[in-house]
Amino acid sequence: MIQTPYLLFLGDAPDALSAKVAQGIKDWRPENCVGQFRMDGCKADMKLTDMTLAEAKAAGAKTLVVGVANRGGKISPAWKKVLVNALEEGFDLASGLHNLLRNEPDLAAVAAATGRALHDVRVPEVDYPIADGVKRRGKRVLAVGTDCSVGKMYTALALDAAMRERGMKSTFRATGQTGILITGDGVPLDAVVADFMAGAVEWLTPDNDDDHWDIIEGQGSLFHVSFSGVTMALVHGGQPDALILSHEPTRTHMRGLPGYALPSLEVLRDTALGLARVANPACQVVGISVNTQHMGAAEAEAYLAEIEAQMGLPTVDPFRQGAGRLAEALAAV
Amino acid sequence: MIQTPYLLFLGDAPDALSAKVAQGIKDWRPENCVGQFRMDGCKADMKLTDMTLAEAKAAGAKTLVVGVANRGGKISPAWKKVLVNALEEGFDLASGLHNLLRNEPDLAAVAAATGRALHDVRVPEVDYPIADGVKRRGKRVLAVGTDCSVGKMYTALALDAAMRERGMKSTFRATGQTGILITGDGVPLDAVVADFMAGAVEWLTPDNDDDHWDIIEGQGSLFHVSFSGVTMALVHGGQPDALILSHEPTRTHMRGLPGYALPSLEVLRDTALGLARVANPACQVVGISVNTQHMGAAEAEAYLAEIEAQMGLPTVDPFRQGAGRLAEALAAV
Repeated sequence: MIQTPYLLFLGDAPDALSAKVAQGIKDWRPENCVGQFRMDGCKADMKLTDMTLAEAKAAGAKTLVVGVANRGGKISPAWKKVLVNALEEGFDLASGLHNLLRNEPDLAAVAAATGRALHDVRVPEVDYPIADGVKRRGKRVLAVGTDCSVGKMYTALALDAAMRERGMKSTFRATGQTGILITGDGVPLDAVVADFMAGAVEWLTPDNDDDHWDIIEGQGSLFHVSFSGVTMALVHGGQPDALILSHEPTRTHMRGLPGYALPSLEVLRDTALGLARVANPACQVVGISVNTQHMGAAEAEAYLAEIEAQMGLPTVDPFRQGAGRLAEALAAV
Repeated sequence: MIQTPYLLFLGDAPDALSAKVAQGIKDWRPENCVGQFRMDGCKADMKLTDMTLAEAKAAGAKTLVVGVANRGGKISPAWKKVLVNALEEGFDLASGLHNLLRNEPDLAAVAAATGRALHDVRVPEVDYPIADGVKRRGKRVLAVGTDCSVGKMYTALALDAAMRERGMKSTFRATGQTGILITGDGVPLDAVVADFMAGAVEWLTPDNDDDHWDIIEGQGSLFHVSFSGVTMALVHGGQPDALILSHEPTRTHMRGLPGYALPSLEVLRDTALGLARVANPACQVVGISVNTQHMGAAEAEAYLAEIEAQMGLPTVDPFRQGAGRLAEALAAV
């Protein structure tokens, strides 16, 4: 569990895209952000107050979150002075980069000397149990995709926001590094050892109030041969009461797999539902989220209407329209 | 890769069952066994020549394999003198026990000093790639079960034996610790990090002759919520051309999961085939293996005939009948 609130470290970000983790935190959990720290030449801006470490500390920030990735997703030597100073000023550090804070000798030594925590959110920090399959109280929803990277995390966060607006009880349950940094907690599922994947998902989504929804961040796709085992663990460990089908209609083949066609939404629905009902016989498909970012507004609107008619399910692009209709579909479960 | 042949270490095995790993090696790869090493009081016997370390070394043994598990599956302090001596005599050590050879300070120190290898087959020794889904040459068969522990490894080894008898080209591809110790090679799939599971299976079953069969050891079950993700990685990473359905008909619920019923063979067939065809559209179900160990001979015979008629597929208990009919079914693919 990462201590909030955060000071967002944007470093020497060469452009806005390289700070997309920081953007995600700012967009979805602005209450977790005290301010931003930018180095000379930084081209990203979260429109937060620029702060020194001392100012952020005085304002209550607990953790400096690396919200930027340089080429290669590595910790940059240029950032080290700030990161070391942050530890000395009493901040914990959190990062989702490929190389680990804990494996940097200077950071590890200063963290040990100052008693601060280094959170590498790509790496599990918990010994997860083996799944026991026992039915848990409360409700759970999971987005499953026709492919990887079709907008499942965005859908989950938008759904969480829409449910909160409506006064519904919901918790976004992060299963990837960006989601974990956004919320400060979660399971880096793709880094969990195989035998414990489903158990990690059970651990992440424990018993809760009967009217509470866990919104479980999806990963991979049942139809993506590289990562389908991770998706399966979400479907069975998550015991979802509701599934949302996620799709990106302009993709010509599965991401990174030339020659693999995407499944139809019907095939995804039937496959995911059959598997989900092993763990939860009451599971149902409640809606569809479509990522229409590569379509014009009119084309997107027509496509959404077509899918809604074809599938008989509320169909939205959460980025264009919000996830209100999906929240309403869950309220009716 | 573990160097063969082996000296099988039976230690102070309290009974035959505690030496079942050694028994598996002796039964399936007798050519890998130079002899056995028994301590005072050992109650297990593989009917191999009892040898001292020096005798086994002179006979060509390269690795001392821990073929015994005491209560708890741990390395026993009582074995240490033999294990240390074996390293000093020039043997590598191999074990599938829960605690690791490499984590025993005495064994680690002597192995380092003597330049010998410690193989803990529960732990991956390779950095596996992420699966790329590219179609590989050669053929592959995978057993998928209605549940865990229904005889998938036994089926695979019996099939390998039957295919060799017929002069077919086949390789048993181990995915669990017992299978790895039997053959000296494989992937401990349940210990692989989630993102790399399918890639590990691709790595294990590379391009091969067009008429060569990899017989991939199955794990878990698509219907066992604790381990289904591992099974999914086998189905997608393995790109099987053929599936064998494995079943144990007396089980009243999924292993370790009270309240979870086993799927029917029809549901297993349809689910597994649908998923397998994502990676290999030509995949077919070629036969059924039934573990009838809890049935009498007549009951078993009647049950096998009933399932064969019901499913329209060759149905055998490989323990009672061998896997010849399954090998013939593969030859016809």
